[in-house]
Amino acid sequence: MNAVDQSARDAGDGGTTRSRPGGPAALGPPRSLEAKLLRRLLAHLGHPPIEFVLWNGERVDAAPPGTEIVGRLRIADRGTLYGLISDPQVRFGDAWSEGRIEIEGDLVQVIEAVFRSVRHAGEQGSGLRRLAGSLHRPRRNTLAGSRENIHAHYDIGNDFYALWLGETMAYTCAYYPTPEATLDEAQFAKMHHVCRKLWLRPGETVVEAGCGWGALALHMARHYGVKVRAFNISHEQIVFARERARREGLASQVEYIEDDYRNIRGRYDAFVSVGMLEHVGTEHYAGLGRVAAECLPSHGRGLIHSIGRNRPGRLHPWIEKRIFPGAYPPSLAEMSEIFEPQELSVLDVENLRLHYARTLAHWQALFEANVGRVRTMFDEKFVRMWRLYLAGSIASFTTGGLQLFQVVFAPQDNNDIPWTRAHLYEPSG
Amino acid sequence: MNAVDQSARDAGDGGTTRSRPGGPAALGPPRSLEAKLLRRLLAHLGHPPIEFVLWNGERVDAAPPGTEIVGRLRIADRGTLYGLISDPQVRFGDAWSEGRIEIEGDLVQVIEAVFRSVRHAGEQGSGLRRLAGSLHRPRRNTLAGSRENIHAHYDIGNDFYALWLGETMAYTCAYYPTPEATLDEAQFAKMHHVCRKLWLRPGETVVEAGCGWGALALHMARHYGVKVRAFNISHEQIVFARERARREGLASQVEYIEDDYRNIRGRYDAFVSVGMLEHVGTEHYAGLGRVAAECLPSHGRGLIHSIGRNRPGRLHPWIEKRIFPGAYPPSLAEMSEIFEPQELSVLDVENLRLHYARTLAHWQALFEANVGRVRTMFDEKFVRMWRLYLAGSIASFTTGGLQLFQVVFAPQDNNDIPWTRAHLYEPSG
Repeated sequence: MNAVDQSARDAGDGGTTRSRPGGPAALGPPRSLEAKLLRRLLAHLGHPPIEFVLWNGERVDAAPPGTEIVGRLRIADRGTLYGLISDPQVRFGDAWSEGRIEIEGDLVQVIEAVFRSVRHAGEQGSGLRRLAGSLHRPRRNTLAGSRENIHAHYDIGNDFYALWLGETMAYTCAYYPTPEATLDEAQFAKMHHVCRKLWLRPGETVVEAGCGWGALALHMARHYGVKVRAFNISHEQIVFARERARREGLASQVEYIEDDYRNIRGRYDAFVSVGMLEHVGTEHYAGLGRVAAECLPSHGRGLIHSIGRNRPGRLHPWIEKRIFPGAYPPSLAEMSEIFEPQELSVLDVENLRLHYARTLAHWQALFEANVGRVRTMFDEKFVRMWRLYLAGSIASFTTGGLQLFQVVFAPQDNNDIPWTRAHLYEPSG
Repeated sequence: MNAVDQSARDAGDGGTTRSRPGGPAALGPPRSLEAKLLRRLLAHLGHPPIEFVLWNGERVDAAPPGTEIVGRLRIADRGTLYGLISDPQVRFGDAWSEGRIEIEGDLVQVIEAVFRSVRHAGEQGSGLRRLAGSLHRPRRNTLAGSRENIHAHYDIGNDFYALWLGETMAYTCAYYPTPEATLDEAQFAKMHHVCRKLWLRPGETVVEAGCGWGALALHMARHYGVKVRAFNISHEQIVFARERARREGLASQVEYIEDDYRNIRGRYDAFVSVGMLEHVGTEHYAGLGRVAAECLPSHGRGLIHSIGRNRPGRLHPWIEKRIFPGAYPPSLAEMSEIFEPQELSVLDVENLRLHYARTLAHWQALFEANVGRVRTMFDEKFVRMWRLYLAGSIASFTTGGLQLFQVVFAPQDNNDIPWTRAHLYEPSG
């Protein structure tokens, strides 16, 4: 469980220092032009409680007096600093991945501190965010664009993901009935939670939009006696999922289809999509809603599970550029563009933000436990990129920059719905 | 519990006929100009399965062949029919209230049938709805306008409301843990449900925006050990609530303030508003969000409970004109205008639509049980107006034209929130 500390040990280039160093170098005014520019950047970022050490040993610390420093950033050279000033969000990630920035301290805590200070910086900060956002528009999710975007992330190797996603290979937020649950327990609990929310009954049919490595479809078939057609455009994932269904003797109940959600046809008792909406793009939400509404008879139910935001805003541009091309986490109002034009009733929204922070911490721990193998599969830069992606994601969920919405919906005239949500919380099911 | 049948018996002017009459008058083509106009209106309304009998005995039935007729409408005179054609939504309510239209059959079922057929009429129907909507804009909810609007509905007499709201005098959707719960049990369960969702702890402070006759504030103080400041602009309700607090020995814990929610000041651990948002007006949602956000420290929680819609649309114009001036039920995207500008996290949304249909059926049964006293307090027209309002509201909730959203929210950086929602479903609490 001590994922964060483990990560920090690997990430730092030496012992961590959490209390503010009291030496005169930290307190004196910055002398060089670069130090002055850095101070100005830090003011824009809301004076995060971070100390910077430049290549020449000069120290810059723009935190308000009396604030405890949570980490120290060492910047390797002048070019890195100018990159940081020109485009802090993308350049920080790139420089850290390449080892041109090193962090002493807990990586998650350092990022959390920056996120909080940027948020509290008010208008200047959000202006900066808007500017940064406008420079990095997500790649378009046309049929071809989606294939390319999905390929870039999900097809980099099933063996790699198998190292750190746990037994289920579910690459989405888990649900921890208690904070002590293990990752695998929480992923199973998440699948049960989803099935209970959909009120699945034996003999029913389900269509799944974006099925990952296929765990949820298999779970539904095995534990709820339903037939599932599961769509996915990641070739690697579909191959893996089909083999899994065969091995587990569920191939007659679960059909994996290598195709886009836009090509879903037919009628089903339930529509489910866990962790796909982030890749759909708001301009396609009305179309997704049409697909869902056309799938569902009047007694049908649907569930969409997605990373979201409290208000509209781009994914962090470094994550969008280097990790998830084309991805975008919607606000609830943006998600409404799926439901409202079809008069689909939203029955239940649950925000599992802190569950995602915990899921990520578990992934991070497995990643670090297997980091040697990752380094062999890829290289040191990849290891550091992934480390930053996991740590930054944890920080986004703990500071509320990202949310996780699970939305249950049904056609407007469906009165055959559970009377309360109590059945979700009955022991075993 | 047999509220609907009771209402129908009172409402009809004779025996009800539910199966389609087979006589030749029903099947022959309409002869008069008025009958032809009525047929055209019925086509616009999607051919509802209703038979019409004109003043001259002529029968019009535009339902598709083979459809079972759910009720019969008798139109008293030519003027009523022309009124209906010119503005069906408002004029139907007025004519029925004045006895110029009589219904044979179950009033709720007749309205449900019309709502369903209008909905399925597609574009023509929604065009008609849009037209009707544009003719009846809600009255504005300025500070003065709100007082006038609220006075018109809530200040017509505490004695009247006491006849049919049950012991709690809660005039909002109840929560039925099981469908068998009584009205009073369900209102108490609703208040517990709200308090649990807000995760109230002894010694905390709560501000309530729109407190009705004060039941929830008293419940919170009595069962959860919190101090409450409750705002309301209905003078009659505030007087009643203060007397109630005194009588129940809770006056030191609950302060009722006769003032607008816009004048709420101070910091509280929780913000709650049950059944007020319908009267706020979308143009004031951002202001309401500001009030809520300014109330709440980072560990604070909020809950807004409101009638809503699956997509934006006016309240039924007759209800808006005769029953609830200035009222408007928002869609979830419209409600987001409260939360998103303040970066408030939506943690939980529960749709209690069918619970409101049941609540209304219970109110209707009590109303009919006391209808003689209502008639003495007001007059026959008032009785019929209220009957139509209750029946029409039931039909709106059963057919999905209206929803009931309970939304829990918190400041973005509040990580001190319940880990799951299981505590809402633990026996007693």
